[in-house]
Amino acid sequence: MAGLDLNRKIIEETRVKRDQDHFSVLLHSFPSEIADRTEYLSGRIKTNPAFALCRVLAGLALCGATVAGIPCNTAHSPAIFEPLLKQIRKKRMKIRLLNMIEETGRFIHQEHPKLKRAGLLCTLGTYASGVYPKWFSKFDLAVILPPVQIRKAIHAAIYDNTYGIKAKPSPVTVRARQVFIRAVAELKKCGADGIILGCTEIPLALTEKKLFGLPLIDPTRILARSLIREIR
Amino acid sequence: MAGLDLNRKIIEETRVKRDQDHFSVLLHSFPSEIADRTEYLSGRIKTNPAFALCRVLAGLALCGATVAGIPCNTAHSPAIFEPLLKQIRKKRMKIRLLNMIEETGRFIHQEHPKLKRAGLLCTLGTYASGVYPKWFSKFDLAVILPPVQIRKAIHAAIYDNTYGIKAKPSPVTVRARQVFIRAVAELKKCGADGIILGCTEIPLALTEKKLFGLPLIDPTRILARSLIREIR
Repeated sequence: MAGLDLNRKIIEETRVKRDQDHFSVLLHSFPSEIADRTEYLSGRIKTNPAFALCRVLAGLALCGATVAGIPCNTAHSPAIFEPLLKQIRKKRMKIRLLNMIEETGRFIHQEHPKLKRAGLLCTLGTYASGVYPKWFSKFDLAVILPPVQIRKAIHAAIYDNTYGIKAKPSPVTVRARQVFIRAVAELKKCGADGIILGCTEIPLALTEKKLFGLPLIDPTRILARSLIREIR
Repeated sequence: MAGLDLNRKIIEETRVKRDQDHFSVLLHSFPSEIADRTEYLSGRIKTNPAFALCRVLAGLALCGATVAGIPCNTAHSPAIFEPLLKQIRKKRMKIRLLNMIEETGRFIHQEHPKLKRAGLLCTLGTYASGVYPKWFSKFDLAVILPPVQIRKAIHAAIYDNTYGIKAKPSPVTVRARQVFIRAVAELKKCGADGIILGCTEIPLALTEKKLFGLPLIDPTRILARSLIREIR
């Protein structure tokens, strides 16, 4: 569903009037072949999802894709993303993979210059990976994490079998949405002046542009814009 | 956007609890390479879109797809769909293409046995092609077309540069939605006991299950279910 969300945002951010003026887009979704990224980072799964992601990128390249993005924040953790980039170079694949987290930092730097302390909503895997602090420091942006209990609640609102977005993505449950709203309120108390919807499932639940006066930054929409920029 | 709608409906119709339990789906969208189907049927374009559609199917097969559907009613017109099937056989492609219109007739026959007179909302190309009467007669279903002025209004609500769904798909304009609602009222007066949303753009505007007491039949959702059935 996060892949569809990215594809929809590519269409929305392309201002044209006829079908034929839109960009070619290939969306490859192989959920059974790509192990859960958080499970890998926490050591419960042995095989790095980077290898399966690399096979998907190879298939996209085979069909003519020249630039690609992965609508999954956790997949951008250095332990997954760096081996993936290495494989792409090693196999001399003719496809350029954008880094959604780096693109998000650049976007905030350029479009929200007053935003300096980004509150982060994401999975436990992404929190543990430190991928946001890593890339955001390049753009002089602080990253604020909520207290650990709230992090666990956010993770559950994504993964829970009964009310999580992955199980109930369309429509999202009220319970999942409430968890994210409370987390934004808490991050505001912690001093955040903007919120990163740092799991590609979260924009499905929080569709507003601002909450409690803080801009909600959607890395999926930023990735869509960056893909359009690269294709142009 | 119709492709995304089909993909979303495949996910919605798959009742599972984890990402990894979903089916693999490849969505290939090459809008600049596939000429407008109605333009071809009306003689304003010379090259049959069947050839470009065949190339897209070949790419999908190359990446491992074994069964495919095309979320475009007009592409099912015999003048396009039959040459396409012929190409698939000739090239001995290892991919099976479902016929969305035939699947819709079968679905109504099985799931709505009392529905006997289907009112049709679609593009001028689909109206002119006779594809719905052709396949629906196999299932003993009558097809009711609205008066010609309303057909033109429906076509415009799909194609118009300023308010049509193809130009403004997300969100759909109020004006486009109103055209479809009025057409359903008119088809009811003409004796329809069910409505076919016979252009894959229309379910984006009419999301309810019933209107004026008539069931709204969404061929995109039926195609999603048929693809799942074939993969299972």
